[in-house]
Amino acid sequence: MNVHVALLHYPVYNRQHQVIVSSMTNLDIHDIARAALTYGVQRFYMVTPLEDQLQLIQRLVAHWREGHGAYRHPERKMALELVVPATSLTEVVESITLDCGQKPELLVTGASLAGPTLSFSEARKKVLLGRPLLLLFGTGWGLTNEVLEMADHRLAPIQGSNDYNHLSVRSAAAIIFDRLLGTKKEMLDAGC
Amino acid sequence: MNVHVALLHYPVYNRQHQVIVSSMTNLDIHDIARAALTYGVQRFYMVTPLEDQLQLIQRLVAHWREGHGAYRHPERKMALELVVPATSLTEVVESITLDCGQKPELLVTGASLAGPTLSFSEARKKVLLGRPLLLLFGTGWGLTNEVLEMADHRLAPIQGSNDYNHLSVRSAAAIIFDRLLGTKKEMLDAGC
Repeated sequence: MNVHVALLHYPVYNRQHQVIVSSMTNLDIHDIARAALTYGVQRFYMVTPLEDQLQLIQRLVAHWREGHGAYRHPERKMALELVVPATSLTEVVESITLDCGQKPELLVTGASLAGPTLSFSEARKKVLLGRPLLLLFGTGWGLTNEVLEMADHRLAPIQGSNDYNHLSVRSAAAIIFDRLLGTKKEMLDAGC
Repeated sequence: MNVHVALLHYPVYNRQHQVIVSSMTNLDIHDIARAALTYGVQRFYMVTPLEDQLQLIQRLVAHWREGHGAYRHPERKMALELVVPATSLTEVVESITLDCGQKPELLVTGASLAGPTLSFSEARKKVLLGRPLLLLFGTGWGLTNEVLEMADHRLAPIQGSNDYNHLSVRSAAAIIFDRLLGTKKEMLDAGC
């Protein structure tokens, strides 16, 4: 599948709707990398402008890829091989464009996205087209309007069975991968 | 919906297939409680025989229900109201039986369940029947054979888009809730 994923720690809102850089969470890396590999995602970009946080990701990934972790937990090593630290969304888009020979379509996710949204079945059809697609997730209280305006499409929010709508980004990513990328024979080709 | 969830920290296997008590993970409580509330689960039982771990859950839940956390994060308070500490699976079954007037059917989950399994659409039909259903998740390297033998049904493992099959229990729970309990008007009644 030609699907790439980025988790943005900037620019995102905090509870007071101020634009902030959020902190990395160790478990976001592990959980989303494992789900990404399970569903055939090509790359999982961890995006932050903070140099010390980027170094932290590098160290964590190196531990699990090459260090003691790789030996004890080979299934984590495989998942963490998808993880790429990046300083900005622009850098992610440039990297995918270089890898795939064309700019990816940007599909943003969010619990409170309004306006024209793409349904899951429409988004799944886009995945099947095989053109590079970049799925964007926000931390904190969600991606800023600036990011929403850069995107080509907004994915419809996940509906559970009531109005409560506060999944962790880890849970939301797992559900979205399952809905968009779950087993279909025709989806199993090798990416760009 | 008449669906209840339990996360077992005993009896589960470790990597060497020995029966152990696993440690609680703070984020399991938060992530699974938030997903459970999103999908209309009645109760989320955190099961461990260890007294200090049970007290830890009590303290954590009290902080978010009544303490500073409740004020700052009302959406977490709502989710943590589903959390019930329990010392054993037997205690969970007795508690649901008392609440609902009948014993729940036990449906176990696991990444490597073999033999006769229930497909997701068959399991979804069971949910719609409205009889009490207890969905069991294991930590560590999975629920022991003893638990599997107590269960009425085994849920088919989640298939992603390849053979890699190492989702975190948080991701697996989110996907299973979405597949079994996702929005359908007829599923929105109030439990037992």
